[in-house]
Amino acid sequence: MTSSPRVLALSGGVGGARLAAGLARVLAPEALTIAVNVGDDFEHLGLTICPDLDTVLYTLGGVVHRGQGWGRDQETWHTLDAMRSLGGEDWFLLGDRDLALHLVRRQLLAQGRSLSEVTQDLSRRLDVSHRIVPVTDARLRTRVHTVADGELGFQDYFVRRRCQPAVRALTFEGAEEATLSPGLAEVLADPALSAIIVCPSNPYLSVAPMLAIPALRTALRVTHAPVIAVSPIIGGEAVKGPTAKIMRELGVEPTATVIAELYADFVDCVVVDTCDASRVAGDPRFAVAPTWMRNDDDRFALAQACLDLARQRKG
Amino acid sequence: MTSSPRVLALSGGVGGARLAAGLARVLAPEALTIAVNVGDDFEHLGLTICPDLDTVLYTLGGVVHRGQGWGRDQETWHTLDAMRSLGGEDWFLLGDRDLALHLVRRQLLAQGRSLSEVTQDLSRRLDVSHRIVPVTDARLRTRVHTVADGELGFQDYFVRRRCQPAVRALTFEGAEEATLSPGLAEVLADPALSAIIVCPSNPYLSVAPMLAIPALRTALRVTHAPVIAVSPIIGGEAVKGPTAKIMRELGVEPTATVIAELYADFVDCVVVDTCDASRVAGDPRFAVAPTWMRNDDDRFALAQACLDLARQRKG
Repeated sequence: MTSSPRVLALSGGVGGARLAAGLARVLAPEALTIAVNVGDDFEHLGLTICPDLDTVLYTLGGVVHRGQGWGRDQETWHTLDAMRSLGGEDWFLLGDRDLALHLVRRQLLAQGRSLSEVTQDLSRRLDVSHRIVPVTDARLRTRVHTVADGELGFQDYFVRRRCQPAVRALTFEGAEEATLSPGLAEVLADPALSAIIVCPSNPYLSVAPMLAIPALRTALRVTHAPVIAVSPIIGGEAVKGPTAKIMRELGVEPTATVIAELYADFVDCVVVDTCDASRVAGDPRFAVAPTWMRNDDDRFALAQACLDLARQRKG
Repeated sequence: MTSSPRVLALSGGVGGARLAAGLARVLAPEALTIAVNVGDDFEHLGLTICPDLDTVLYTLGGVVHRGQGWGRDQETWHTLDAMRSLGGEDWFLLGDRDLALHLVRRQLLAQGRSLSEVTQDLSRRLDVSHRIVPVTDARLRTRVHTVADGELGFQDYFVRRRCQPAVRALTFEGAEEATLSPGLAEVLADPALSAIIVCPSNPYLSVAPMLAIPALRTALRVTHAPVIAVSPIIGGEAVKGPTAKIMRELGVEPTATVIAELYADFVDCVVVDTCDASRVAGDPRFAVAPTWMRNDDDRFALAQACLDLARQRKG
């Protein structure tokens, strides 16, 4: 008996979730595991908020706000408005429907269940059939070291200060001691694993926290499965978010070459957008495909392209 | 220097809040303290919900839903709807705007502040200038002993089971050990205290938990200030809620006479509605006034009548 091929996707928030949704359209539920960054997670108003997990859950559950790529569709903001008028904290945008997920998650976590178990439960409640797992059940928190404002929690930097402070360095609290979530460890150990896709998420804010877990980086280095990374940089800019800004602050050019270097110890191929084809021509580390996902067809095509590349690299 | 006369109102939820609002229209902020039942309080979804305090806060803050008498005006239910569709707990009606108050309260309590301090803060945020205090800062929880369903938490009985189980007895967890909140103790000790009004709240579910605190019952017995209680029973029925049903289950006739007996050790006068005048004619324990508060003028008139009665009983 041979088991069916399986694919692992590593995802951050919006960009990652969009490719994960494309992969979910190509692959059967049992053939895809999506491991999601938890470095952005934080405690707020007594709730544990997991922005990247939520974005992936909402995207695969078909309830995401399509335009912004995060949060829920047809969202309203009555609780947040009332919080504001009561002088409460309103800097983190919590929609009324989104809040329901956080309240349910809080209750499940309070029952002593792991984040993996809670995520599986929430997936079921959102009718998501593909497997979404946190990269770890341990507490892992991205810390942003800024040039002028000292060390900030991730959401303090990302939402409250809108990524304005210049970044000097990033550290990942808890990563050294973190073990992989059972679902991620299981798929990495599966001989049937046929491809690992690093989704086009911010390499510093979304992928680096995951790679900071020693067991993951080691597994990516030694795996027999081809590792395909999609660059989130298109024409020197990020489609969304502060990737390019942070790269410049850290003194690196925002190009796919830097992505290839960041992932050099484990990546088999970095996919760059067709508009950047000339920049990587002749370099065997790269492949070219349309990476800008504006609609479901774009996601599906990019997912297919990644899986095709994995088959070629393996074969 | 003589201090100005001061009035203490003891209030449960809807009926109590309406008379408290009437008193607040008659009396200056420094002349009125409203002490509120906390026996209904409970922990739900990680939040501490204080239904009676909330009802008094919303009523005096002018944001209450006027028709139902509790919850917020112009309320929406998107979070609760989303909770329901996620299979979460939806039996306790939490509106989107109401939820904001609970989230702010949770945060203030998590800072280690007492319920009195938090209530004072929330009053300020809701532009309430009269003083609202919990009857105690200690944990006090009404337990409902039913004939067929055993012992239930108050909200489990009141909301989840809609007061359907027949009541055998009520107990008040924590009452024996509870001390009065600083604001309530202060007004009870003030020589300028000129009247104590027991608002028309359910004597078993709303007033009894307060009276179960030994320090309060003793203070009511020994105070020099007249104690005026407004009966919540009109024509053998309660204006709102299960008062009459519970009285029948406990084997007592739902009449103002029972109210006078329940409060016999401390009450100076029980106010009954004009429609019940013939039932209490000639009995010096009673006074008659219109007690059904359908609008602001009714509240104002009943508040005036209570204060007039207190002056007469004192003089």
